[in-house]
Amino acid sequence: MIEQAIAYARQNAPAFLEDLKAVVRIPSISTLPENRADMQRTAEWLADHLRRLGFNRVSILPTAKHPVVFGEWLKAGKDKPTLLYYGHYDVQPPDPIQLWKTAPFEPTVVGENLFARGASDMKGQLVAFLKALESLAHSGGYPVNLKVMLEGEEEIGSPSLRGFLEQHKDLLACTYCLNGDGGIQAPDVPSITYTLRGLSYFELRVHGPAGDLHSGEFGGAVENPANVLCRVIAGMHDAAGRVTLPGFYDQVRPISKQERADARKVSRSDDWWLGHTGAPALGGGEAAYAPTERATARPTLDVNGLLSGFTGEGSKTVLPAMAMAKFSMRLVPDQDPALVLRSLGRYLEKHLPRSVTWELLEHASSRPAIVERDSAAARTAMRALELVWGKKPIFTRQGGSIPVVGLVQEILGVDSILLGFGLPDDNLHAPNEKMHLPNFRRGVEAFIHYLYLAAGDA
Amino acid sequence: MIEQAIAYARQNAPAFLEDLKAVVRIPSISTLPENRADMQRTAEWLADHLRRLGFNRVSILPTAKHPVVFGEWLKAGKDKPTLLYYGHYDVQPPDPIQLWKTAPFEPTVVGENLFARGASDMKGQLVAFLKALESLAHSGGYPVNLKVMLEGEEEIGSPSLRGFLEQHKDLLACTYCLNGDGGIQAPDVPSITYTLRGLSYFELRVHGPAGDLHSGEFGGAVENPANVLCRVIAGMHDAAGRVTLPGFYDQVRPISKQERADARKVSRSDDWWLGHTGAPALGGGEAAYAPTERATARPTLDVNGLLSGFTGEGSKTVLPAMAMAKFSMRLVPDQDPALVLRSLGRYLEKHLPRSVTWELLEHASSRPAIVERDSAAARTAMRALELVWGKKPIFTRQGGSIPVVGLVQEILGVDSILLGFGLPDDNLHAPNEKMHLPNFRRGVEAFIHYLYLAAGDA
Repeated sequence: MIEQAIAYARQNAPAFLEDLKAVVRIPSISTLPENRADMQRTAEWLADHLRRLGFNRVSILPTAKHPVVFGEWLKAGKDKPTLLYYGHYDVQPPDPIQLWKTAPFEPTVVGENLFARGASDMKGQLVAFLKALESLAHSGGYPVNLKVMLEGEEEIGSPSLRGFLEQHKDLLACTYCLNGDGGIQAPDVPSITYTLRGLSYFELRVHGPAGDLHSGEFGGAVENPANVLCRVIAGMHDAAGRVTLPGFYDQVRPISKQERADARKVSRSDDWWLGHTGAPALGGGEAAYAPTERATARPTLDVNGLLSGFTGEGSKTVLPAMAMAKFSMRLVPDQDPALVLRSLGRYLEKHLPRSVTWELLEHASSRPAIVERDSAAARTAMRALELVWGKKPIFTRQGGSIPVVGLVQEILGVDSILLGFGLPDDNLHAPNEKMHLPNFRRGVEAFIHYLYLAAGDA
Repeated sequence: MIEQAIAYARQNAPAFLEDLKAVVRIPSISTLPENRADMQRTAEWLADHLRRLGFNRVSILPTAKHPVVFGEWLKAGKDKPTLLYYGHYDVQPPDPIQLWKTAPFEPTVVGENLFARGASDMKGQLVAFLKALESLAHSGGYPVNLKVMLEGEEEIGSPSLRGFLEQHKDLLACTYCLNGDGGIQAPDVPSITYTLRGLSYFELRVHGPAGDLHSGEFGGAVENPANVLCRVIAGMHDAAGRVTLPGFYDQVRPISKQERADARKVSRSDDWWLGHTGAPALGGGEAAYAPTERATARPTLDVNGLLSGFTGEGSKTVLPAMAMAKFSMRLVPDQDPALVLRSLGRYLEKHLPRSVTWELLEHASSRPAIVERDSAAARTAMRALELVWGKKPIFTRQGGSIPVVGLVQEILGVDSILLGFGLPDDNLHAPNEKMHLPNFRRGVEAFIHYLYLAAGDA
C-alpha cells in the first residue's frame, strides 16, 4: 500500500542517509586508473543492495573498462510495464582538491546539505531510487516489473555503453527507460527535463620542434605550438560568440515559439547566473540569446583544459615543443557528433599551418535527445511530482549530456523519462558537491508514487 | 709567461673537466624553492675556488633571493685595466625530465660532448674562465686586475641584480665588464656577439567563475576564461606574424645595410633551423624577415606556458575557473621594457571582457643591448679568438637576453664584452643540454690569451 511505503520511507530516513554516506565514501572515480578497485567495490555494494531488495539475476557484467551492475524483478505480471532504471555509480575526480571545504570522500552534513563528491551526481539520486524500492518491498512489493542497469563510465562519456547495450539487448528489453540522472529547477520547483544536450569532447595536441627550445635562441624562427594552439582555439568563435566550424549550426532545431514561451516562465535571471557562479559578469555565449537559452537550448564550445610548456612558479624562457587543449561542444537537437567531428577536422586542416604537426583525439561523443512531452511516462512523472510537491511541475531543457538516453533510443528502441532531484547549485563536477537532503527525501517519495502510478500505464 | 699558461691548461685538461663535472652535479635551479640549499652549495663551491686562486675579499653577498659570489685580485698595478668578470651559477629546471637521455645532474661524456643541465649555460663557460685563471696563477700570475661577480638569478630574469649593482657600485667599479655568458656560431667559426635581445616576461591569469563549473550546466551562459585567454593571446599577432600591441615596433632600430650584409655571411639556412629543432617546417615569425633575422634582430612574442582546467588523461567536462598563460617578448634595440608593459596593459584593458577578471605579473624585464664593435675590448677579443682558432672571428647578433649587460651599462657606466664558447645546438633550457669539450678547452686558452692582451689595453 502506498501510504505504508511512504510511512516506511519517513521512518527510515536516517538509515537511508547512512547508506548514502556509505556509498559516497568509496571514491569511484572512473577516469583515474588508480581508482579501479574502488569502482569494483562500489559495483559490489550496489549488487549486494539489489540482492537484498529481492532482485534476481543480479550480476556485475564486465565491459572493456568498468563493469555494469544489473538486476531484475519481473514478478508484477505480464500486464504491467517493465521499467529499466538507468543510473551510474562513477563520479568525477575531486580536483582542484584544495578548494573543498570538507574532504570530498568523507560525506559531511552541513545544515540541510550533504557534502561529498557524488552526493548529487548521482549516488544521492541512485540511493533515493533504491530506498523507494526498499520502502515498496516492505509495503506489499513492487507494482511494476523492474530492471536496473548501473554503469561505471558516465563521467568519462560512456565509452563501453553502446557495445554493452548491443550485447545485452534482450536482457535489457523494457517498456521504457526510467533515467535517474536528472534534476529539478529549485527545491520548491518540481520539473521534468525533456531535452538534453549532446557532447563532442576532443583533445588537440599541437607539436612544433622535437623538444623544448630556448625562446631567445629560437623564438621568431621556429613556430611556437602554444601560439598556434591559442590561434586555432580563438578562431573557433566569431565576435558574436558563434561557433565558426563549417556547418556547425546547420542541424540545430530552432527554438519554437511555444518552447520559448514555456522557457521564459523558468528562465533564470542574470542575478541567478551570477550568484550561482561568482562570475564577475555574464558573457561568452551567442549574443543573440539569453543566458538560460545559451546554456540549454543552444550549442556551445568550451575549452576544458590547456597545458603547454612551463607552468611552475616564476619564469622559464622556453619555446614549448607541444601544446594541448581539451575542448568540447554541447550539442542540441538535431546536431550529430559525427558531423561535428568532420567539421572540426576540416577547420583544423584549413587553419593549422605546415610548421606544426597535430593529432586530434575524440574522448567522448553523444547525441542530443528530446523526450516526448505527451508520452505516458512523462504524464506519470508529472503526477508523481505533483503528489509530492503539491504543485504542477514544469518542463525544462537541461544543458548537460546523458549519452545513454540517445543510445537507449537507438539500440533498445525505447524512450527515456528523466526523473531526478539534483539542483542547479549542487556543484556538479566541481568542489563542494552537495545533495540537498529535503530533496533526497522527497525524491524517495516521488519514486514510490511514480512506480505505483506507472503500474497503470501499461 | 703565456706559453707556460697554455701548456698548463693542456696538461691539466682532464682535471679541469673533473671540476666542471663536480659543479654541474649540484642542481642549482634558481626558480625552484626546493633547490635553495643547492644554490648555497654552488655559491660556496665557487667562493672556495676563488680563494684557492688567490682572490681577496671573497664573499657570498646576500640578495633578496639568491646570493652573489664576489672576489677580487687587484695587484696587477694601477696602469693595468680592471676587468669585472660576470657569470651566473644558476641553471634552468630540467623538465621535461623524461626527454633526457642521461640524468640531467649526472654529467656524462658521450663522444666530444659533456651532457648535463648547466654544462653550457653556463657552468662550462664559468669553469673555463676559472681554469684560465688557474693556468695563469701557475705561470707567473694575472696580467690584469680582476673582479669576479657570479649571480644566482640569471635564469629567473635577475630580479635582484639592479639593487645589487646599485648597492655595491664602488666594490664593482671597473674598466669594463667581461661577460662570460656568450656563444660562438659553430665549433670552427669563432664569433663575438655585439647585440643581445631584451626580455619582457609576463604571466596573465584570467579568472571567470568563482570555482570550476560543469560545462553542460553552465557552458554558454558563463564566460569561459580559457576561451578568453586563447583569444587575447591569439590577438597579439596579426596574420603576417607581427605583434599587434600598440606601438610595439615604434622603438625598433632598423637593421642597417652593413649589418644585413654582415649577417648574410653567417645567416643560417632553413635546413640548419629545421635540423637543429626538428620542427616540421619553419614559420611563426614576421613573414617579411629571414629566420635568422627573426631570431636575432627582430622582436618576438612567444607563449612559454599554458595551464587551465583539466589536464589529466581522458576527459572532464569542466568550465575552468581560471586560465593562465606565461608569455614573453624578446626585445631589440631600442625597445624599452617599461613601454612594452604599458602597451600590453592597454591591449589587455581593451580586449579582456568585463565577464572576467585578470591579473598580470611581470616576472622579468631587461633591456636589449648593443656593444660597440670598435671598442678596445672588442678588438682584444677579436685577437684572442684569432690566436686560438687561427681565423678571424665574425660579429654576430644573439637572440637571447643577458639582462646584466644593460644594467652594467646603466649603473656601473661601463660596456660589456661578451666572450663565451657555447654553441647554438647546446640545447640550452632544453633536455640534453651539452658542452662541446673541444670548445671548453679552446675557451680556456682564449681567456688566457684575452687576459694577456687586455693588459695592453689600458
